[in-house]
Amino acid sequence: MRDILPDEVELRDAAVREIVGVYAGYGFRRIETPALEHLRLLAGSEGGENEKLIYKVMKRGDELEAARRAGDDLADLGLRFDLTVPLARYYAENHARLPDPLKAIQIGPVWRAERPQKGRFRQFTQCDIDVVGLASPLVEIELILATTDALARLGLSDLTVRINDRRLLEIVARHCGFAEAAHGAFFIVFDKLDRLGPAGVLAELREGGFDARAVERFAELLPRLDPEKVSLPTLRAALSGTEATDAWDSVATIIATANTEIAAGCRIRFDPTLVRGMGYYTGPIFEIAAAGYPSSIAGGGRYDRMVGRLLGRDVPASGFSIGFERLISILTERGGLPTRENTETASRRVALLVDEGKDLGAAVRAAKSLRSAGYLVSLEVRRKNVKKQLEDLMTHGFWGHASVDDPQRRPEVKPLVSKAASR
Amino acid sequence: MRDILPDEVELRDAAVREIVGVYAGYGFRRIETPALEHLRLLAGSEGGENEKLIYKVMKRGDELEAARRAGDDLADLGLRFDLTVPLARYYAENHARLPDPLKAIQIGPVWRAERPQKGRFRQFTQCDIDVVGLASPLVEIELILATTDALARLGLSDLTVRINDRRLLEIVARHCGFAEAAHGAFFIVFDKLDRLGPAGVLAELREGGFDARAVERFAELLPRLDPEKVSLPTLRAALSGTEATDAWDSVATIIATANTEIAAGCRIRFDPTLVRGMGYYTGPIFEIAAAGYPSSIAGGGRYDRMVGRLLGRDVPASGFSIGFERLISILTERGGLPTRENTETASRRVALLVDEGKDLGAAVRAAKSLRSAGYLVSLEVRRKNVKKQLEDLMTHGFWGHASVDDPQRRPEVKPLVSKAASR
Repeated sequence: MRDILPDEVELRDAAVREIVGVYAGYGFRRIETPALEHLRLLAGSEGGENEKLIYKVMKRGDELEAARRAGDDLADLGLRFDLTVPLARYYAENHARLPDPLKAIQIGPVWRAERPQKGRFRQFTQCDIDVVGLASPLVEIELILATTDALARLGLSDLTVRINDRRLLEIVARHCGFAEAAHGAFFIVFDKLDRLGPAGVLAELREGGFDARAVERFAELLPRLDPEKVSLPTLRAALSGTEATDAWDSVATIIATANTEIAAGCRIRFDPTLVRGMGYYTGPIFEIAAAGYPSSIAGGGRYDRMVGRLLGRDVPASGFSIGFERLISILTERGGLPTRENTETASRRVALLVDEGKDLGAAVRAAKSLRSAGYLVSLEVRRKNVKKQLEDLMTHGFWGHASVDDPQRRPEVKPLVSKAASR
Repeated sequence: MRDILPDEVELRDAAVREIVGVYAGYGFRRIETPALEHLRLLAGSEGGENEKLIYKVMKRGDELEAARRAGDDLADLGLRFDLTVPLARYYAENHARLPDPLKAIQIGPVWRAERPQKGRFRQFTQCDIDVVGLASPLVEIELILATTDALARLGLSDLTVRINDRRLLEIVARHCGFAEAAHGAFFIVFDKLDRLGPAGVLAELREGGFDARAVERFAELLPRLDPEKVSLPTLRAALSGTEATDAWDSVATIIATANTEIAAGCRIRFDPTLVRGMGYYTGPIFEIAAAGYPSSIAGGGRYDRMVGRLLGRDVPASGFSIGFERLISILTERGGLPTRENTETASRRVALLVDEGKDLGAAVRAAKSLRSAGYLVSLEVRRKNVKKQLEDLMTHGFWGHASVDDPQRRPEVKPLVSKAASR
């Protein structure tokens, strides 16, 4: 977990404004859920590896004492590890007061007790859109267009969306002859293709106690799943005999429609090797990567059974989540947003120097008159070493300075000039 | 803890935008700290009652096992109960990279394991400004002006700021003859004046094991502390012989300057009965109440020793915190913000009805053309009972609807009309 300094908060706020602006244009509206959820909700959510990383909150007062005496679980709450599980609970509890379908934007922190490593934080922000209550491929088309539009607005224009479908993964597993009960374990190994390569995945399958003939059929099929070469109709024909016409049709519709309407420079591509870790997905799954950045910046998919487990009747749902920390690190690397907003704010930031002991009312009035002229004005007590003070102000993003001389007139703002420039 | 529905999130976001806009005008910039802090930081912060309400997070993995075996504390982290203690830690750790003084805006959730009661939540948002690194009364003047400006911008114009000073409370305690060691306990009882009245406070002091003569001297003084009648110079004269000239001077300066410059309709008033619960305050303390609302909507004060306990050298600091949930409940009661922003967004919200099975590409293009005309467009699958569907859309804040008829032309937007109005 980490602190965020003013420059980065301003970049984050500006990025959120742009993203929410695009999403609102698509008819999404923000909702909020609390950071803490009941542990039994989080732990039973098919959240895959993330469930092992839950920060657990201890019971309190008498309940804690009772649990101690009885040898029960000492924790009853947990910090959310994603925004999808809380959304399902939110929908189950509030659906009577919500539109149908619900088109939700969620932006907020999630927590995972991961081992510290570069670029990974234990508290990080996710930025999700979800449509709850509609099963049409229209949903995935809009999720993909809205998310690529939002990223393109932030200057990430060279985007590739990879798409697959959980049902097609099931077809692959069935085609190879893996036992139904082993599908989940097979997908977990298959998901390592990026890191281990084909040979590594096959080795792990061969040593992993899977049916040997199924592994060999998978070894034969694997080259034909190569996202660089695969075509959806060809693979569909090769895997015919298996069912799930709907799955093939909806992925084809999503790709065809989204590819025509997607932001300039972006593309959507069928990738039958895309797995995604969470067990709760039931249909199309997708990820976005930007050219030049190996790991994905957004991912999502359809999870038609999660709400049903809480509500008692199935409600279709699908969502797309931007990894906000990764996005911000890319934007920082690129020097901020393509809009001029950052620069404009910075050029209005002025320090109004006040002499300690002088008339504070006059200083306050001078600041007010500069504010009414559009400046962001910080009253700063003048130090003995004013030269050093002005340099410090520039270091911290101030654009200009002024002094309270004539209380009757608006102070004149002078730009701060770096030593290098003034020489 | 509670879920927040779209209408309320939009009100909250709009309020945050207004507040941050005003605070930025005063030279404040946003910072962020993580939700979790080390328990030893939170528990040793003189946070008063709040320390008893900390949500504690259990250790994880091997550390948890080790703690279990050794009979050690099972928790190592806690959810922050305010934004002041984390700010002090933030400053102590990051001061080399921060401006001096730091003018920080913090907006974020805090957690307190309180008994459930009306209008109180266990997760709630605070909205703080703090100046760290400057001891001048200029700081309090700006904190008060910025906070009242922000609230006035939200339509709360009839505000009263009550101000006192921890050092004046010490003078009162010393004047009455309470032992130094009993001052803290005395302030806790004195703080109940609002609820118990003078007789109740005196009864509790008399039964509380305090020095009887000190309690009687306090009983004599108490009528002269009545905020309706007290004047600062008179009280200062009555309590002369005690020290702390600085305290009297700075409160007088703050009141005089802020009263001249404060937003129209607002006032600042000396209140020697104002205590505020937290033990960490060292100087001026203040609260804001709006006319017609009994409890305060903002509170704060100077805490010059908190950073020093972490950093090893004292750094003056002072802050003002808006109770965001209370603010939002007042704004909701009043029907939102005085600005037209809510209404404008609502009047751009359009449902574009699509027939399931028809050309989705045409629907996506039609939505795009409406978006480029400034509408917020939600693609909605047309239901059999369209009349009911249109009523539902209106219930959920849609302003208009349109259909994809001629793919070559931008769809015509028709306002949704309520049944009552169309009769």
